Amino acid sequence: MIIDCDIHNELSPDSLDRFLPQRWLDHRRRFGSRTHTGSAYPKGAPHAARADAWPPSGLAPGADLDFMREQHLDPLNVEYGVLNCLSPAGTQLNADYSAALCRATNDWQIAEWLDKEPRLRAGIVVPYEHPDLAAEEIDRVADHPGFIQVLLIARTAEPLGRRKYWPIFQAAERHKLPVGVHFGGGARGVPITATGWPSYYLEDHTDMSQAFQAHVISLVLDGVFERFPGLRIALIEGGFAWLPPLAWRLDAQWQRYADEVPQLTRRPSDYIHDHLWVTTQPIEEPHRPRDLLTVFEHLGGVDRVMFSTDYPHWDFDSPTRAFGVPLPAADAAAIYTENARSLYGLT
Amino acid sequence: MIIDCDIHNELSPDSLDRFLPQRWLDHRRRFGSRTHTGSAYPKGAPHAARADAWPPSGLAPGADLDFMREQHLDPLNVEYGVLNCLSPAGTQLNADYSAALCRATNDWQIAEWLDKEPRLRAGIVVPYEHPDLAAEEIDRVADHPGFIQVLLIARTAEPLGRRKYWPIFQAAERHKLPVGVHFGGGARGVPITATGWPSYYLEDHTDMSQAFQAHVISLVLDGVFERFPGLRIALIEGGFAWLPPLAWRLDAQWQRYADEVPQLTRRPSDYIHDHLWVTTQPIEEPHRPRDLLTVFEHLGGVDRVMFSTDYPHWDFDSPTRAFGVPLPAADAAAIYTENARSLYGLT
Repeated sequence: MIIDCDIHNELSPDSLDRFLPQRWLDHRRRFGSRTHTGSAYPKGAPHAARADAWPPSGLAPGADLDFMREQHLDPLNVEYGVLNCLSPAGTQLNADYSAALCRATNDWQIAEWLDKEPRLRAGIVVPYEHPDLAAEEIDRVADHPGFIQVLLIARTAEPLGRRKYWPIFQAAERHKLPVGVHFGGGARGVPITATGWPSYYLEDHTDMSQAFQAHVISLVLDGVFERFPGLRIALIEGGFAWLPPLAWRLDAQWQRYADEVPQLTRRPSDYIHDHLWVTTQPIEEPHRPRDLLTVFEHLGGVDRVMFSTDYPHWDFDSPTRAFGVPLPAADAAAIYTENARSLYGLT
Repeated sequence: MIIDCDIHNELSPDSLDRFLPQRWLDHRRRFGSRTHTGSAYPKGAPHAARADAWPPSGLAPGADLDFMREQHLDPLNVEYGVLNCLSPAGTQLNADYSAALCRATNDWQIAEWLDKEPRLRAGIVVPYEHPDLAAEEIDRVADHPGFIQVLLIARTAEPLGRRKYWPIFQAAERHKLPVGVHFGGGARGVPITATGWPSYYLEDHTDMSQAFQAHVISLVLDGVFERFPGLRIALIEGGFAWLPPLAWRLDAQWQRYADEVPQLTRRPSDYIHDHLWVTTQPIEEPHRPRDLLTVFEHLGGVDRVMFSTDYPHWDFDSPTRAFGVPLPAADAAAIYTENARSLYGLT
């Protein structure tokens, strides 16, 4: 006879169905498991997708170029679309595997997307936590006319101004490519807030703006734009109504402690205005829609604001309904096409 | 004979003076050492103090009541002053020692400050990471008329909405005391940003707003204000121009994912307006000063905005110069005295 003091019984997917109240069965179906792994899209919207974005081909949302043409590029009259391919390639802990996955992803983007559809452009996926390898990848593919930016993810291991990342900026500047920083990332065991782990998906999603705020502060104070005066950064899916208050605060504090950052030769807000672009989705929706125009005014105008939909994701913004208020014609042209045309060199 | 493979040579305070360039000698004198311990005040302003705030008595800035009267309470015509005593009492890892230090600190506040100066009120210092002990301390001293809020620090171990902290809110509500959350805290090895450690003091100082943002999101989504409908929270030294964009974003996302947080019966912004107060220092200083009035408008008015100086700290705001724009008389009265009078029950 033995007494076995360690045996593992196993839950099947439906084991708890009889025991979990309906309210939590619904929760499990729609939101699934959320643990200490950073932002995770709700199960109820697999691939974070709009319910109607699943192609008849059986491919995942965003995976079928023909369906993308039919559902998005054609009916919305998209002159150019910037692909920001989100993949785990850039965040692998094995540096060489990360670089290999990024090379493969970029070659796939060329073969399956850029060479097939003249309206599409793409960001270069890079192993961003290994900036020397990222710079190599930028050098390898930057001359392809389809690549119009370098793509980073918002929740990097350190604030982006730190010199660890400078080889990426140097390579981007060398090739006259902007650097796009996109919502996401972060399953590194580090909480998304200054105060630990949030309870909800909705909370994590809203907290994400803070990663962008930290990058803006860091890029400015670490003197990145002094070191790389040609560098242009696009903040993608991070919102922007928080940017004017942040610039005001940074200017005010900098007046008192400028000697901590002697590398700056101008006000923080000057760098912000000259070097940062933002995309619209998810656009802040003021309670009085016309207040959006005030936000633009506080930004110093709309010359750095670029339209985006986030297709095919659940929080997609429609071009006809994204702005709750009519835009002056010149502003609309700037936001919908001209600012991106200029930043990305789209002729 | 031996070969000793581990001997420690020691730097004296001036050992590097001959070897460090002047630029970094100046830096060391003014900013000192900054490592992975969160916000640290520059050495050039010990105790984070205004240069003129050192009392002739030789005590530290803020430690000498007579000097505080002479330099601050009398000349600035302070009707009431709210003491937010910053001390390491609340953050001790030994829970019982933390509670003992908090009890001693509150008894000292009664004996040396509240009983001696009728214009002063104070926050109850509590062992906030041990909420059951914090609730005990609130129960112990809440009846003293000098204590008009419970004082927490911004960088707690978890977002404040989490149920760990509910005993504090329950005790505060029981005694009809607001909870003040003040700038600071965080030397727990957890970075202040979603992307790791910032390079500069100035950066850390600006990043601190994000701790407040995370708390607002968490308090709302975790349903704290449904559970404790009488609870009022004052955000102290966190800024406030970021609050309207945050509320807009939260409302918009909540419309799509309200079923993740069924505990909410109202829009996130409704809880924010009804339950949150903010103090003015460090006030955001818009480039066009009149834009401050727009910020107030986006806040839904000034009825939750309370004046503060941060005396005796370096980033002190003077009552005559804090606002770069003339305030309407009714707004000025609300901000300078009436909102605090009402929140804190000052008659």
